[in-house]
Amino acid sequence: MTGTLVIAGLGPGSDALVTPEVSAALARATDIVGYIPYVARIPERVGLTLHPSDNRVELERSRHALEMASEGRDVVVVSSGDPGVFAMAAAVFEALEAGPRSWRSLDIRVLPGITAMLAAAARAGAPLGHDFCAINLSDNLKPWALIERRLHLAVEADFAMAFYNPRSRSRPEGFARTLAVLKKACGDNRPVIFARAVSTPDEDISVVPLQDTTPDMADMRTMVIVGASRTRIVDTAGAPIVYTPRSAP
Amino acid sequence: MTGTLVIAGLGPGSDALVTPEVSAALARATDIVGYIPYVARIPERVGLTLHPSDNRVELERSRHALEMASEGRDVVVVSSGDPGVFAMAAAVFEALEAGPRSWRSLDIRVLPGITAMLAAAARAGAPLGHDFCAINLSDNLKPWALIERRLHLAVEADFAMAFYNPRSRSRPEGFARTLAVLKKACGDNRPVIFARAVSTPDEDISVVPLQDTTPDMADMRTMVIVGASRTRIVDTAGAPIVYTPRSAP
Repeated sequence: MTGTLVIAGLGPGSDALVTPEVSAALARATDIVGYIPYVARIPERVGLTLHPSDNRVELERSRHALEMASEGRDVVVVSSGDPGVFAMAAAVFEALEAGPRSWRSLDIRVLPGITAMLAAAARAGAPLGHDFCAINLSDNLKPWALIERRLHLAVEADFAMAFYNPRSRSRPEGFARTLAVLKKACGDNRPVIFARAVSTPDEDISVVPLQDTTPDMADMRTMVIVGASRTRIVDTAGAPIVYTPRSAP
Repeated sequence: MTGTLVIAGLGPGSDALVTPEVSAALARATDIVGYIPYVARIPERVGLTLHPSDNRVELERSRHALEMASEGRDVVVVSSGDPGVFAMAAAVFEALEAGPRSWRSLDIRVLPGITAMLAAAARAGAPLGHDFCAINLSDNLKPWALIERRLHLAVEADFAMAFYNPRSRSRPEGFARTLAVLKKACGDNRPVIFARAVSTPDEDISVVPLQDTTPDMADMRTMVIVGASRTRIVDTAGAPIVYTPRSAP
């Protein structure tokens, strides 16, 4: 008797951004595992057990999901956005690799989702229309020196940059350092997009020239996108449109 | 009388990966504009006009869509994947910026989609679970020297790398050069994922050590993901799982 383990992306917040594939997996599940606010998005129903857990227990949560799947249950681990981008998929595979050999016979699938970077970019225009990079600014998982080196190399490569987890209460200084590095390294006034709580009722999008940015413009729910050197702003009757041209000389 | 313009992402191929938001926009449209194979995915219905067009006419297609929206029609420009990632959104904004001032009063929205990189990563495991970059290898839009510089900087930053448009009939040599640069610069045997036609009946996924890769492993329908130095392979009873750990020293 073997169950299944699905690692599913719920997108950035709105149910209109959940893929039919993910909705079908949720409808089939016997157990749903995830961080409290993501599990709270799943309606209760008979035959479904919800297992919400706190932040920063990703490995314990992963082991729990793998154990339940080994016991024959149909488990869905829910992530915000896409599970493969700074979310639960890598954590589950870390737990799988370190766990009992029997887990490697489980039927495990990852179902992609709309990651915050894509939803934020869509709201602002097309800032990721040319080559870009995605960096997790949380220094829980890597040293600041590595983040700083990547920032410098990303500027040198002239990538647009998407920053996940720019700022949290426990480490407010990282984002201030990031902005300081960028102001110096970019040497221009390229647009920075602050996209908070995209696709939820709390959504707030602003576009700020790099030199005018301040660390308090981002919080835990903000995705930050910094344009490349060729990123442009088009003024319209509504909000400005930020896009990066497809070509480069 | 003003119409609307929606730039929508259809995802990589399967209807199970089209968001409800995009499905709703398609159901409301009077006109659908896009590259022939993407428009072919939209079922015909009364009141809907399909406007398929050939590849490499992105700007003409964009102007046509903007003109129809100005005439009061509800136009959807369809893209494969996500419209903001190497797809139609930047082309529409380029046309908008160069076009008549009146176009700037149009109601324009971008609806995100599952871009090929996320769908391919999900099939293989979680290769983009740590910092990564996305590079369009087509040298129609930028010189090879810029691509090569970005490859070197991406390796130095130790990003996982997602490559769009690795290879086409008209420029087969670019991908051979890319592999040659990477074999030399990486100096290790990290996993490379070739994900062809993900989520379609032609789907084919393979994982090949970098030193064993050859240019003919990719074609126009292939997404290529190259792991970072810490990317791991977990052998399972089924296909191997490729993931990049969340943390780095």
